[in-house]
Amino acid sequence: MSSTSGVKKVVLAYSGGLDTSVILRWLQQRYNCEVVTFTADLGQGEELEPARKKAEIFGVKEIFVEDLRETFVKDFVFPMFRANTLYEGQYLLGTAIARPLIAQRQIEIAEAVGADAVAHGATGKGNDQVRFELGYYALKPDVKVIAPWREWDLTSRTKLLDFAEKNQIPVTKDKRGEAPFSVDANLLHSSSEGKILEDPAVGPDEIVFQRTVSPESAPDKATEITIDFVNGDPVALNGTTLSPATLLTKLNELGRINGIGRLDLVENRFVGMKSRGIYETPGGTILLTAHRSMETITLDRDAGHLKDSIMPRYAELIYNGLWFSPERRMLQALIDTSQHSVTGRVRLKLYKGNVICVGRESPNSLYDARVVTFEDDEGAYNQEDAQGFIKLNALRLRLGAQIGRKGGAL
Amino acid sequence: MSSTSGVKKVVLAYSGGLDTSVILRWLQQRYNCEVVTFTADLGQGEELEPARKKAEIFGVKEIFVEDLRETFVKDFVFPMFRANTLYEGQYLLGTAIARPLIAQRQIEIAEAVGADAVAHGATGKGNDQVRFELGYYALKPDVKVIAPWREWDLTSRTKLLDFAEKNQIPVTKDKRGEAPFSVDANLLHSSSEGKILEDPAVGPDEIVFQRTVSPESAPDKATEITIDFVNGDPVALNGTTLSPATLLTKLNELGRINGIGRLDLVENRFVGMKSRGIYETPGGTILLTAHRSMETITLDRDAGHLKDSIMPRYAELIYNGLWFSPERRMLQALIDTSQHSVTGRVRLKLYKGNVICVGRESPNSLYDARVVTFEDDEGAYNQEDAQGFIKLNALRLRLGAQIGRKGGAL
Amino acid sequence: MSSTSGVKKVVLAYSGGLDTSVILRWLQQRYNCEVVTFTADLGQGEELEPARKKAEIFGVKEIFVEDLRETFVKDFVFPMFRANTLYEGQYLLGTAIARPLIAQRQIEIAEAVGADAVAHGATGKGNDQVRFELGYYALKPDVKVIAPWREWDLTSRTKLLDFAEKNQIPVTKDKRGEAPFSVDANLLHSSSEGKILEDPAVGPDEIVFQRTVSPESAPDKATEITIDFVNGDPVALNGTTLSPATLLTKLNELGRINGIGRLDLVENRFVGMKSRGIYETPGGTILLTAHRSMETITLDRDAGHLKDSIMPRYAELIYNGLWFSPERRMLQALIDTSQHSVTGRVRLKLYKGNVICVGRESPNSLYDARVVTFEDDEGAYNQEDAQGFIKLNALRLRLGAQIGRKGGAL
Amino acid sequence: MSSTSGVKKVVLAYSGGLDTSVILRWLQQRYNCEVVTFTADLGQGEELEPARKKAEIFGVKEIFVEDLRETFVKDFVFPMFRANTLYEGQYLLGTAIARPLIAQRQIEIAEAVGADAVAHGATGKGNDQVRFELGYYALKPDVKVIAPWREWDLTSRTKLLDFAEKNQIPVTKDKRGEAPFSVDANLLHSSSEGKILEDPAVGPDEIVFQRTVSPESAPDKATEITIDFVNGDPVALNGTTLSPATLLTKLNELGRINGIGRLDLVENRFVGMKSRGIYETPGGTILLTAHRSMETITLDRDAGHLKDSIMPRYAELIYNGLWFSPERRMLQALIDTSQHSVTGRVRLKLYKGNVICVGRESPNSLYDARVVTFEDDEGAYNQEDAQGFIKLNALRLRLGAQIGRKGGAL
Repeated sequence: MSSTSGVKKVVLAYSGGLDTSVILRWLQQRYNCEVVTFTADLGQGEELEPARKKAEIFGVKEIFVEDLRETFVKDFVFPMFRANTLYEGQYLLGTAIARPLIAQRQIEIAEAVGADAVAHGATGKGNDQVRFELGYYALKPDVKVIAPWREWDLTSRTKLLDFAEKNQIPVTKDKRGEAPFSVDANLLHSSSEGKILEDPAVGPDEIVFQRTVSPESAPDKATEITIDFVNGDPVALNGTTLSPATLLTKLNELGRINGIGRLDLVENRFVGMKSRGIYETPGGTILLTAHRSMETITLDRDAGHLKDSIMPRYAELIYNGLWFSPERRMLQALIDTSQHSVTGRVRLKLYKGNVICVGRESPNSLYDARVVTFEDDEGAYNQEDAQGFIKLNALRLRLGAQIGRKGGAL
Repeated sequence: MSSTSGVKKVVLAYSGGLDTSVILRWLQQRYNCEVVTFTADLGQGEELEPARKKAEIFGVKEIFVEDLRETFVKDFVFPMFRANTLYEGQYLLGTAIARPLIAQRQIEIAEAVGADAVAHGATGKGNDQVRFELGYYALKPDVKVIAPWREWDLTSRTKLLDFAEKNQIPVTKDKRGEAPFSVDANLLHSSSEGKILEDPAVGPDEIVFQRTVSPESAPDKATEITIDFVNGDPVALNGTTLSPATLLTKLNELGRINGIGRLDLVENRFVGMKSRGIYETPGGTILLTAHRSMETITLDRDAGHLKDSIMPRYAELIYNGLWFSPERRMLQALIDTSQHSVTGRVRLKLYKGNVICVGRESPNSLYDARVVTFEDDEGAYNQEDAQGFIKLNALRLRLGAQIGRKGGAL
Repeated sequence: MSSTSGVKKVVLAYSGGLDTSVILRWLQQRYNCEVVTFTADLGQGEELEPARKKAEIFGVKEIFVEDLRETFVKDFVFPMFRANTLYEGQYLLGTAIARPLIAQRQIEIAEAVGADAVAHGATGKGNDQVRFELGYYALKPDVKVIAPWREWDLTSRTKLLDFAEKNQIPVTKDKRGEAPFSVDANLLHSSSEGKILEDPAVGPDEIVFQRTVSPESAPDKATEITIDFVNGDPVALNGTTLSPATLLTKLNELGRINGIGRLDLVENRFVGMKSRGIYETPGGTILLTAHRSMETITLDRDAGHLKDSIMPRYAELIYNGLWFSPERRMLQALIDTSQHSVTGRVRLKLYKGNVICVGRESPNSLYDARVVTFEDDEGAYNQEDAQGFIKLNALRLRLGAQIGRKGGAL
Repeated sequence: MSSTSGVKKVVLAYSGGLDTSVILRWLQQRYNCEVVTFTADLGQGEELEPARKKAEIFGVKEIFVEDLRETFVKDFVFPMFRANTLYEGQYLLGTAIARPLIAQRQIEIAEAVGADAVAHGATGKGNDQVRFELGYYALKPDVKVIAPWREWDLTSRTKLLDFAEKNQIPVTKDKRGEAPFSVDANLLHSSSEGKILEDPAVGPDEIVFQRTVSPESAPDKATEITIDFVNGDPVALNGTTLSPATLLTKLNELGRINGIGRLDLVENRFVGMKSRGIYETPGGTILLTAHRSMETITLDRDAGHLKDSIMPRYAELIYNGLWFSPERRMLQALIDTSQHSVTGRVRLKLYKGNVICVGRESPNSLYDARVVTFEDDEGAYNQEDAQGFIKLNALRLRLGAQIGRKGGAL
């Protein structure tokens, strides 16, 4: 096989696992090019050093191993949570939000080492290929993208293992048999999908869950916590200021033990099919309730409604891999503008899968007990104003009804 | 006091309680007009016949007592749930959705008995006055609306009780003291607000809750149920076909015992202030998850995204009392159009506050395991298509990046 | 060449021109299959019978020649105009709206004649390939689609002419040289693009225009007309009831002589690039102003605002070829619901490129001079209501300003 | 009359005309308070010094006369035009956009002179009262607002003139009779409404128009101009750099002589009624086409579509007087983010009411002739990519059609 494609140097997103090891070797053979590996810690919970050693064994000269957890949470997870983002009403986008960071670092490394290509290990049916590649192209428009799963002929497990064997790629015993489902993980979530999970009529077995106990197994006593926010981002847990990644890590642990953040979902992929995933987002689930609760007293009504109205579009963009797009940047500007006063403290009760807000306070609170009270409000609100308010809001409806269009008939 | 206002006959939304009894008498005195009472059963859980008797005592000649539960659920609750409606991301609109029906029946009665006015017992600070009156005006544009709480001088509890005493209005012992908070209830929910609940920094006491046990007190064992949908509406529970109100009643009971549907919320009123409410929507909370889950396999992706994008506006309309408006009707047409195939069965696990979907199946399922599978899909999906899909989706981003606008920069 | 692809019979959208004649012959050779031709009159202003004769010469046995003008206007153009649809604020979608009808008839014919494939003459860079093929797939999911311009090697004009010559395809003299730009036309519009029009810094030469005189050449005296609407659709011109296609034809003539409906636009294609087109939509431009003007007095405010807010999405769907999609159907339901009272008469002045509304009247008019008048309104509107209306609309802003968030600061 | 209201000092928006002079005197009498006048030049085309002299005659001690034209155009008009803002698809918001600036300066002056109240001359039926007062309250939540037209008993022309006479307020001869319609003007537009214009079935007489000749009276020869933009704002006309107000003034003159920018509209007021206005926005109409044209080559597709989708809401906010609101600020952040590369030159032809773009160029152009060309593109675009693009976009439609939901049926 010759390098007819003209690829000279490729940066591979490399986990050190079997699949990306096969890809590494395959790239060396198929493209006869230099491979640079990039292994990132986004909180997936795996050792990174083995990946370095394996890469060395394959003769890789430029090996990048990086801990990106703080960047991941600070620059990707938190901005997304400012919008209370949910895809299709339920999914916290744990996989989607990690892809742009990986793509960005891959491209930065490609620029640094003079590589002309990048490669990833995502399959041809999923969203991740789209997310990686839209990121690549947006950041380096002339980059050559290699997606081995769409190109090669290792289309079955057997062929893959054969290739591994022929190429002295170590296959651990547990990888010989096929995994019963596929897992993706980072500091925000883990997802499981495929194979035994492909029938949406059947609930997931308990063994599927990676990072949460079941609500049933969680403690019988609730845990109460506080989260402090500054400008829309969480900064402290139980009064202790923490870095973004540390805070999320601790929330994950709190979520884990209290059975929080499981989701069994059928979702719609950007590539046009429905798929079923089991998600666990323990810390993120706590954070969503915390942030929304913080906003309830600090955010203006119409500011909040505007955010809610654009959120589905924002979520869709992230899901589809369009983090690095003009429209995501524009929506982010709108969202970030709204967060300047989202500062204060939220109290939450965690109990067997439930995240319950039991208190919120803020120096910027717009909640005014003096106005809303059933008691004497000392003139803070003039009840007579309500009549004019209603009369003019009703005017167009009355004018319509007067000519026979009653009840809002058209 | 004379009837200078020219009101001849007024239809009062009458609960039979102290407040609306005072209103009844006050209307008779202040407006010197005939009062017609209208008492409806919307599932608030109170006897209606005492209201009839009290009205008789006040000399009311035309007394309407009606069981509207089926209409309420079929024509108001279910249409709203087709949109997975949540106000401000959290509130299931239990109070808001009941008001249009009351307004509609009041106006129908006014037309039937030849009344020229209607009256309600909502205060001048809340949303309900708006919801009632927008409904009245939209249905009968020339109606005279009387909102006693905005008009009279019974501005304190003491004055109200004085008035009651002077007018032989019976005051039960428990009403002598002030209630520690105010309650609204119907078949969909109960809400509690005011007084001891006015500080959003403090969680609600257990005594506040009317229709749910706490998650902590719920059974240690999950309950599993099935709900069947036809065209977007639930029709059967555990395989048994039920009428709308019966179905919701049974879901309420299931929710109650499993600690489901509590919400402690600070929300934004249409009249411009933030208020704090404690809501319990046991059956509705189950229904929301059930309906969303049913849609995940039966609804087209972009149909669902479109619904999600207009939902916040739809929720706002209902919250603001604009059920009888052209724009709500237009959105309903859009929503209803989407539900033709939302038919099938959802399996749910109810456990200590959690509603967990553990299975969905439908004759109209768009989920196609053959396409999504990690296994051999026999050509159902051509992975090579993904490259073109990504390349053209990336094209505008690449063209931008080529002239220096990298990563979606503007 | 063998029929390895397994195509047995293909329905070709056939104009009778050089390009689709080459395609016809190429299909016969490359796929060794039976070709069925479908030639439609959508008002492009060309004779159809020559297409029939040419098809006969090529040995085509099943030839469909159809006048679809009424269907086109009634079921596609008018529904679209109900939404005052403009793509990117300017384009009346003349090309886009014709494609779904062609795709639909092609598929209906394919079903009728037992064809397993369809083919079109659109290029691989444009929107039309997408529009045709999304229509095909949505209507007949198993259909085989042949897009010769993406498949063959006739990639230059010379090769195409060579092929024509070798295959006895008559080439008229004026087709020997390359056209200086490419034209698409139907009853709604004609568009011109490509070649001499590719530089957006340079305005189009007068020779580009097909169906309008220039404003400069139009009469020095205005033409005044009336258009009558029923339920949102135009039904009469100057008081004479006309069929949809006849009405649009007459509006085109009125637009043509008055220099109306020219547009020089750079737009964004669905496939990701910007392109430049010169559009002429004389009748449609008149119709847009007429319909909007009709709505100004018959449509409720918030109904109109809701329509306006979803219009860009609706336009995008049609532009992208998603007429036959769930989301377009849902939006159409919303739009159509709004049109029930859009009935009445609009008076317009046509003058040198201008379409000026000079009068509108309707039995359903919501305009109420009695309310709006500066004169005595006899109590139709109570000016005191305005104070309460303003006070409550201001409340949230005041509460914000009181804690330092002045002027709507966040 | 005593100052029971407690108003000590009021800042009046004072034009020097009859109505606000009556208000001035009425305030002094009714509130027995000090009146501060504020007269601003927003380009309405009237001398300001007479207002100063009149105020002196009324004994006003603090008189503010300010030329705000540059601020008006730079900080209000141009930001609004960045969004291609049109209310109800047609109205360029000339009146609405001026109100926030007046309100802002009035409040700044109130703060400076220690006034506790502000007053304006807008009527109780219109939008302007809302716009002024929402601005006041948002900027100074405790301000006392006096709206004489809603308060006093000078409810007829005769009473007003009587009051003027009794109070030695000079009434020019032409003001003795009632004006046949009411006019508002500033540098962006003039509007005429009321009285002889109240019948929307009848077009406006030529005498109504203030600042444009009719298209018929415009020159027979087109004027060609260029406008240069930097970051979304116009900076130069025909190559000459001009200040914002100067540029708009010159565009107004160009529009005036070419019959550009007339609009006869029935619109929906925030207070709930339909009203009819005749607007003239000569320079603004040119600017709208210029800006949109500039964006067509410099703005990313989805950035533009996002802007278009939020524009109606943005326009509604400005129309309703919510310039100083959190949601307007958030939308502005989104809009402004999009304008960084909207830089370049647009060529326009002005001819008898028409504004025709005949060329656009930019250093930031995203239009790439190399990609879009019908000619050989040297590999800039791979036509084969289109197939995958279409196939995956069609996938959900095909899956739907396979289970019987053909053509996007739901």
